[in-house]
Amino acid sequence: MTYQRPNIEKMQGYSPGEQLNDPAVIKLNTNENPYPVSEKAQAALRNLDAASLRRYPPPLADDFRRAAAQLHGISPDNIMATNGGDELLRLILTTYVDSNETVAVTRPSYSLYPVLVDVQGCKLHEIDLQEDWSMPADFAQQLQQANAKLCILVNPHAPSGKLLSQDYLSELAAAFSGILLVDEAYVDFIEPEQNYQSVPLIDKHENVLILRTMSKGYSLAGLRFGYGLGAESLIAPMLYKTRDSYNTDLIAQKLALAAITDQDYAQSTWERVRQSRNSLTEQLNSLGFTVLPSHANFVLAQVPDKMDAKALQLALKERKILIRYFDQDRLRDKLRISIGTDAENDRLLEALHELLA
Amino acid sequence: MTYQRPNIEKMQGYSPGEQLNDPAVIKLNTNENPYPVSEKAQAALRNLDAASLRRYPPPLADDFRRAAAQLHGISPDNIMATNGGDELLRLILTTYVDSNETVAVTRPSYSLYPVLVDVQGCKLHEIDLQEDWSMPADFAQQLQQANAKLCILVNPHAPSGKLLSQDYLSELAAAFSGILLVDEAYVDFIEPEQNYQSVPLIDKHENVLILRTMSKGYSLAGLRFGYGLGAESLIAPMLYKTRDSYNTDLIAQKLALAAITDQDYAQSTWERVRQSRNSLTEQLNSLGFTVLPSHANFVLAQVPDKMDAKALQLALKERKILIRYFDQDRLRDKLRISIGTDAENDRLLEALHELLA
Repeated sequence: MTYQRPNIEKMQGYSPGEQLNDPAVIKLNTNENPYPVSEKAQAALRNLDAASLRRYPPPLADDFRRAAAQLHGISPDNIMATNGGDELLRLILTTYVDSNETVAVTRPSYSLYPVLVDVQGCKLHEIDLQEDWSMPADFAQQLQQANAKLCILVNPHAPSGKLLSQDYLSELAAAFSGILLVDEAYVDFIEPEQNYQSVPLIDKHENVLILRTMSKGYSLAGLRFGYGLGAESLIAPMLYKTRDSYNTDLIAQKLALAAITDQDYAQSTWERVRQSRNSLTEQLNSLGFTVLPSHANFVLAQVPDKMDAKALQLALKERKILIRYFDQDRLRDKLRISIGTDAENDRLLEALHELLA
Repeated sequence: MTYQRPNIEKMQGYSPGEQLNDPAVIKLNTNENPYPVSEKAQAALRNLDAASLRRYPPPLADDFRRAAAQLHGISPDNIMATNGGDELLRLILTTYVDSNETVAVTRPSYSLYPVLVDVQGCKLHEIDLQEDWSMPADFAQQLQQANAKLCILVNPHAPSGKLLSQDYLSELAAAFSGILLVDEAYVDFIEPEQNYQSVPLIDKHENVLILRTMSKGYSLAGLRFGYGLGAESLIAPMLYKTRDSYNTDLIAQKLALAAITDQDYAQSTWERVRQSRNSLTEQLNSLGFTVLPSHANFVLAQVPDKMDAKALQLALKERKILIRYFDQDRLRDKLRISIGTDAENDRLLEALHELLA
């Protein structure tokens, strides 16, 4: 027999990219930062007194909230810290989407979203992106027609790396009667020249919630720390009602604080990733792949004609290079490649050169 | 306007005990271990390479699961690691209790349970304990009459410290058609002579799930690490479907592993807590309090006649001694006091002596 709720029994769980401990593996499959966390965070770890762990952590991570508020020029009341960005994604559904309500996402998008919809037992509405991964012109109308309570957009988009402007998001938020969650997991890798500034949207629109993570931009995927930014009316119910009572731990709070306050270092890693991304894009294109410009720390590469993307992924894996293949419509001829160090990217390119020869 | 689901809008959040950073405060209000974590866990922290945090952690915490399985003589498939015991409590409801179904708890019990029921939007059924905090004789029938899908018992009981035997739990599990969750947050402080052995229940009963935490027995409340033990059929849906994809972080996994494998040290702290508990119980009774024997790392002390428990708590707080007062039926004449070091307990007793004079 099973005790599972019907929605849980029939659902499939999320499949994360492979996490291998083999240090010989070049791991370009889960969009991790190729550079280590700031030396200041490393020092915070060294200075941590393990004996202090016998006590519960500050429940709201207030030191971190204050630092993030200062960085973004908003109030700590507009911020909540979460156990990775994942927790915020879950809490949005827990708090705001009832079982008879609908969550809208684009297709394709981050494959975790439909899983969270299944867990919550609410409805999913997928809206196809256009051929060039841009939004359909009537996207806002489609949201309204679907009577969506929540729309989740990842921006820059995964897996394409395409960027929506803050003006587009602002118009969409104004036209939409539900909550617009902008998952900015990859925001740190946008070129500064784009002048992408989404945080002011939370003052202008009570229905905009922004997700940030320390996993990618701040090289702390191992720690599980993210945060949400939004109107106090959106943040407070998650902060005071639906969050697990001690959702983030003391060490994560201290290291996330140290990492986010060392902006100079973090930004230097972002710039290096951008330079490597541009160079990798160019070289993949010259190898016969089709790679559109990406604003994230990965590229989506359409394999050359007559090549099999899945076979190429497996051949790379045999050479201890991991990249991501998605077995879904419009992605079966493509590979998602996280940006590594230049040395790692070069190893990938060499392997591809051999495999394509 | 609000976007909240109706159940969320009308609910109240959980109020944790105060967490103060003032090192001058004697903190006997949240059942933390008065002794630091094992030196082996401290060494694991010192040896941790912060640069390794750039990668995602092992998603299932398999090293910890194997160690816990070995400790308990079961398979890793019977174990899942969680972000504190809190996460397991939440996942049980998420996975197994639909909105039209009922969760049964005793009254009084851990005050988080009704909050989790509110968050899930399911029904709560409270069953009063008897005058001496024992279970009503018809408890199993009451569960069946309430058509409960889940029953949560904290054992030893909070806030009374009373212990149910494994035989009682086994009979209850056999008589109950729903899931029996035994929250063993305080199990490590039971006297070895009691020979309490609940883990075999998970082989015998497919509907028994046991919750353990590293927060209390292993002095790691700051870390957020717990685990669940149960039949594979109960564990797997939470492990592979409803858990956040990376729910525990790398540092927590490593320190929890080091702490749980140093049983000698952990057990030495439990023995010290038990000795202090017995001594504190005796001395509180001789001061005029009524304290029943506790099997946990706290005691529930009924204040002497004509004393006001709430006023006593506040007077202690002025003296920088924190203990817990619950403003609810049957508890308004009582104080819950966590067991501190002998020096801390002595300071408490001195203060009480003065206040009662």
